Amino acid sequence: MTRSDAVRLTADLIRCPSVTPEEGGALGLLSDLLGAAGFECVRVDRGGVCNLFARWGAKGHAKTFGFNGHTDVVPVGDEAAWSVPPFGAVEKDGILYGRGATDMKSGVAAFAAAAVDFVRETPPDGAIVLTITGDEEGDAVDGTRALLDHMDATGERMSVCLVGEPTCPDRMGEMIKIGRRGSMTAWFTVTGVQGHSAYPHRAKNPLPALARLMDRLAGHELDKGTDHFDPSTLAIVTIDTGNPATNVIPAQGRGAVNIRFNDLHSGAGLTDWLRSEADAVAAEFGLSIDMEVKISGESFLTPPGPLSDLVAAAVEDETGVAPVLSTSGGTSDARFVKDHCPVVEFGLVGQTMHQVDERVPTEQIQQLKAVYARILQAYFA
Amino acid sequence: MTRSDAVRLTADLIRCPSVTPEEGGALGLLSDLLGAAGFECVRVDRGGVCNLFARWGAKGHAKTFGFNGHTDVVPVGDEAAWSVPPFGAVEKDGILYGRGATDMKSGVAAFAAAAVDFVRETPPDGAIVLTITGDEEGDAVDGTRALLDHMDATGERMSVCLVGEPTCPDRMGEMIKIGRRGSMTAWFTVTGVQGHSAYPHRAKNPLPALARLMDRLAGHELDKGTDHFDPSTLAIVTIDTGNPATNVIPAQGRGAVNIRFNDLHSGAGLTDWLRSEADAVAAEFGLSIDMEVKISGESFLTPPGPLSDLVAAAVEDETGVAPVLSTSGGTSDARFVKDHCPVVEFGLVGQTMHQVDERVPTEQIQQLKAVYARILQAYFA
Ligand SMILES: [Zn+2]
Ligand SMILES: [Zn+2]
Repeated sequence: MTRSDAVRLTADLIRCPSVTPEEGGALGLLSDLLGAAGFECVRVDRGGVCNLFARWGAKGHAKTFGFNGHTDVVPVGDEAAWSVPPFGAVEKDGILYGRGATDMKSGVAAFAAAAVDFVRETPPDGAIVLTITGDEEGDAVDGTRALLDHMDATGERMSVCLVGEPTCPDRMGEMIKIGRRGSMTAWFTVTGVQGHSAYPHRAKNPLPALARLMDRLAGHELDKGTDHFDPSTLAIVTIDTGNPATNVIPAQGRGAVNIRFNDLHSGAGLTDWLRSEADAVAAEFGLSIDMEVKISGESFLTPPGPLSDLVAAAVEDETGVAPVLSTSGGTSDARFVKDHCPVVEFGLVGQTMHQVDERVPTEQIQQLKAVYARILQAYFA
Repeated sequence: MTRSDAVRLTADLIRCPSVTPEEGGALGLLSDLLGAAGFECVRVDRGGVCNLFARWGAKGHAKTFGFNGHTDVVPVGDEAAWSVPPFGAVEKDGILYGRGATDMKSGVAAFAAAAVDFVRETPPDGAIVLTITGDEEGDAVDGTRALLDHMDATGERMSVCLVGEPTCPDRMGEMIKIGRRGSMTAWFTVTGVQGHSAYPHRAKNPLPALARLMDRLAGHELDKGTDHFDPSTLAIVTIDTGNPATNVIPAQGRGAVNIRFNDLHSGAGLTDWLRSEADAVAAEFGLSIDMEVKISGESFLTPPGPLSDLVAAAVEDETGVAPVLSTSGGTSDARFVKDHCPVVEFGLVGQTMHQVDERVPTEQIQQLKAVYARILQAYFA
């Protein structure tokens, strides 16, 4: 039996146009592959989102290694700016191009391929569970959470879990993530009174207040970082009015900020701070400002220990690079998994994720598969 | 011969659906009426826009009184919000309803009716010219400008001109306009580098720079006003990004400001100031900011003198109200006429212009016609 080709599997997955919440054929493809290798596959679909639970070995086994990942991808953005078709999986000079090439169809392909080869070649005394969601880039309400709910309800378990998101900033092997900052988004709506640009005193323009609020928030330093965490960041993600008439002062303007926060903050504390900033600007301009907040996840940490030691050793043995343990970067579904079992994250270099011409060296996919294989070997040794 | 009925003429004009650039039958109706009274009528159509030039008396006469106005109207907006058909010219309790009732089919009807009666009853030693455009609410490129170009090319002239736009804020007779502020719009595009909200240091967010620029511009006091002008104003009219993904830092943000400026400024000077503000913010944030500017009109003033004295006397004699000489409000075609001859503006109360249920008391139309008649009598006396 030939060994699984993680590069070809990545390319096949890229050709599935699985922009959240579209399944795009990606989970079906994985289900077929895993099923053929003896994995029990269950589709766990909820709220219009498709997810895949796959287990090899006995249900609830005390020694169950888990992988988690997602097949959904962010939109392609300005398609004309791409030099290749975003869902074409074009390979040039050893580089594979396409939306999801790094985030994270390559990661899913690498752990699926490693797991399939491992159970075929050296069937372990234990179990392997793959939880693969189609809703990580979206609301993530019915994705990994739905999979974990399904596991709780049916007696499934993972003893430890590795999330295959890209974790390396520049060089393969250099970073393992042992926690994540929290993430939240706040939407502000400033409401004034519409009017004619020539008679501003008869109108009440909401946009100067909105600009001031956004300027205040973007200019504020949240903290300087902690032992295991980088400084918290705030990004203005959009400001919108939609007024096409230059002789009209609009009635309303909207803006949104996304905050990635470390263990010095909580979603509730930041909500209070944002509200007080909005109140200050509202008072200054004599306008009302509505705020809606969504906390995607609080910050968390899996303290350095056996799991991170095992993964770090496999990474160093395969790549020759000693990885640092980090909590930098975006939120991931590890924030849900950490309530189920110890969780760390390791994947490839994420530089082009969410960008035009997202791409990955095929060699890196093979290396990632080899790291995941070493982790399985070491875990079940 | 019966005298001209300005109210019925206004109603007939409202029934012509002349939303810019549609002629809607309005100019044809006026051409028939004026032609029957001995006016020489020429259609001056350019760039898909219809305009009407009408003269009674000798071409190029040294004593030529001019009227200027427009028959085009702004769109009806939400038709369901109207209590009457917008082009129905419904009259209820002495109020005439319809799009253009105040802006400015009533004004055109009043000066056309006054001119027709005047030349029939007391033919003057001089000439009367009516320049009526179908493109005042639109780009105004092929409207009054086309009429003035036609006049230059054919040896036509106006010695003085009265624009019949609504000028009174609340009460008939209270305001004559002797100039207008200039108007310009600037669009700014701030370009950064797209990226993931979790890795702001890898992206370059254009929105903090855009918010800062808008805040700086909106917070700046342009001046405190002059003898004849209110303070200049700057209104942020729109800020837009169009980024639906809260985990994406957008590549670009756009904002636009509209400036109404008095005689302390010029379009060129303000363009320089805006550019320098944009450059300062661009340098502070290390980003590029593009700027596009459209100057709709420079500020201008017809200093108080014989023409404004004559109009003010007619207004006070007819209405009992002593009008103030003002330069407030929006732009009008007087900005083009001022290059041809001294120009002032007088019309009725404009409160409902551009609004749902635009309307005018019929008595006010008759009063306006009477004012215009007094002006003609005094001018040719
Ligand atoms: Zn991802
Ligand atoms: Zn008008």
